[in-house]
Amino acid sequence: MASRNMDLSKPPKVLPRVIMEVTHAVERTEMIYNAGQLRIFDRLSEAGRPVNASELGKAAEVSPECYGHMERLCCTLTHLGLLEKIVDETGMKFQNTEEAELYMTTKSPYSLLKLTDAARHNFDIAEFMKGSGVGDTTRTWFSDVEENNKAFKEVFFRFNRYYQKQDAYSKTCLHLLKAFDLSEFKTVVDLGGGVGSVCRALQRFYPGMNVINLDMPCVVDYAKKQEVDQQLDKLNYVAADVFSDEPLPKADLYIVGHFIHMFNDDVTASILKRIRQFIRPGGAILILEKVMEDEMEGPELCLLYSMRMALSSGRGKERTRHEYHQILTDNGFDVPQFFIDNGYGCYDAILAKKL
Amino acid sequence: MASRNMDLSKPPKVLPRVIMEVTHAVERTEMIYNAGQLRIFDRLSEAGRPVNASELGKAAEVSPECYGHMERLCCTLTHLGLLEKIVDETGMKFQNTEEAELYMTTKSPYSLLKLTDAARHNFDIAEFMKGSGVGDTTRTWFSDVEENNKAFKEVFFRFNRYYQKQDAYSKTCLHLLKAFDLSEFKTVVDLGGGVGSVCRALQRFYPGMNVINLDMPCVVDYAKKQEVDQQLDKLNYVAADVFSDEPLPKADLYIVGHFIHMFNDDVTASILKRIRQFIRPGGAILILEKVMEDEMEGPELCLLYSMRMALSSGRGKERTRHEYHQILTDNGFDVPQFFIDNGYGCYDAILAKKL
Repeated sequence: MASRNMDLSKPPKVLPRVIMEVTHAVERTEMIYNAGQLRIFDRLSEAGRPVNASELGKAAEVSPECYGHMERLCCTLTHLGLLEKIVDETGMKFQNTEEAELYMTTKSPYSLLKLTDAARHNFDIAEFMKGSGVGDTTRTWFSDVEENNKAFKEVFFRFNRYYQKQDAYSKTCLHLLKAFDLSEFKTVVDLGGGVGSVCRALQRFYPGMNVINLDMPCVVDYAKKQEVDQQLDKLNYVAADVFSDEPLPKADLYIVGHFIHMFNDDVTASILKRIRQFIRPGGAILILEKVMEDEMEGPELCLLYSMRMALSSGRGKERTRHEYHQILTDNGFDVPQFFIDNGYGCYDAILAKKL
Repeated sequence: MASRNMDLSKPPKVLPRVIMEVTHAVERTEMIYNAGQLRIFDRLSEAGRPVNASELGKAAEVSPECYGHMERLCCTLTHLGLLEKIVDETGMKFQNTEEAELYMTTKSPYSLLKLTDAARHNFDIAEFMKGSGVGDTTRTWFSDVEENNKAFKEVFFRFNRYYQKQDAYSKTCLHLLKAFDLSEFKTVVDLGGGVGSVCRALQRFYPGMNVINLDMPCVVDYAKKQEVDQQLDKLNYVAADVFSDEPLPKADLYIVGHFIHMFNDDVTASILKRIRQFIRPGGAILILEKVMEDEMEGPELCLLYSMRMALSSGRGKERTRHEYHQILTDNGFDVPQFFIDNGYGCYDAILAKKL
């Protein structure tokens, strides 16, 4: 393979399919990010009828010579599956697909608009690995948080885009709260609940459930401010630090989503032990993380996350089914049940009873 | 659609598949870009045998605690199809796939390494459409070039990354030079040939063909410097400006690749007329551009390019088969023959005889 003689008198038989596909992927992200910036999805939603590109262009205050470009952008979004195109004698009109209506409009409670912004930023694996320490800033947060909340707090406020992104991700896992029947759990704590997307969904799906959003004090302050700004119903909050010795609230179920994967096995074991202390008899832990296939062959999203976890925490990783089984049973939990969300998503669901 | 009532007591039935797929795409680009930065593909090629992640890590001078991250990155590249994984009793080893060997190594004449860097940059469609004029800088180049070569020359040297990117793209079309039998053409001019990838391929595929690389004077200077730096065989160059009144060299075939799509129909028509003047009787024009499906429904790459052309030139666009037919027959060429490169690529091929 490596010593292949390349015959330059003929075009290569193998074309750069992966490379072109991957390098063009950035442009797809740009299309949906910019469509959000131009409020295309919001305007189509507000209009309540198919709208042509000139009208969208006029509303977005783009120069009239760009109305044609607006039509081109809408055609691209149609191809991607975010708009539907209707052609009649007056030309092309567009409307949101259900996916765009749910996830790309500002007013939707499931809005992922902020994710499309957050997704555009490069990260530097090479620099990180070479230890120059100028990789993704989030890397320092989680090292610091274990030792020094103050440092975390300082960077947190400078980078609250990070939290908006986490919130956008958590919205993509809400359907997984139905993967297991959670109705037996009366008091539920979402550890690292951020601005409360998971807690709000639980309250909707399980009326009467006592739901507590637990996070770092600075995150709780931020979440409460978001609540006031966005006129949301109030949640129960507990400001606590999982790495301190303070007691956590007792609960029947602890949920940890996009959390365990930030830590190496030693730190994860200590977190699981500590959480277990505060789960009532008969209670359980629900882990929301993507589960890696054995041999690290997929799913792709899990491979990508695993690399990102290395970058963002300096020690995190995604785990296989076997690894979750091991770390849970080693730390006082029963054999876990897995719900693998095949074909989609940032998360699978892992439920394990306290032993 | 737009007035859909969202039932918040249930998780949405439609999941954000497109949005998550598209927003994660940036990470795939980062993986292959960073693998290039860490010289993974080069080292596997040089080793001539499967290599494990620790060895790759050591060679790249990453900190030893990152060898595990290196393995994770290699697993991700395996999933993407750029590496092959061999597992034996000593663990995982990796080697380049044929695609990686051809296109991701520095020494390959088909190397696309520079494209993976160029592909990482955001562009701002929304700002461009709103006319703030701070969109992609390339936009000003092609406006300027028609009026003022000096302005073009100034920006050109500041942004020669642009030319490296164009060169990477042109390497992906070399196989299309075999789409039609070009052996009857004795003298061939590649108009806008840049650093000469297409010309070099033509010389290899058609020994004896007289090949001329024609571009702006500043580009020819740059190309000649590249030739010296990289110890390449010398090409025939002509420095000329297609927008001036200077004569162009007579030829049997003019090739224009990633060129026509930068201009609106009026400018394109004038370019075609001017080129036609210098094609000998019996000669032809070979256009290398992606052909848009009718109704602008695809292919995706063509939709993405069309938007980028709007941004980069302020007036460019990709054209349908019908539009190419029209503009060529209106400007003194015979009914064009199309070679549509289904399933792949930045380019299709369109050959039209001079009438």
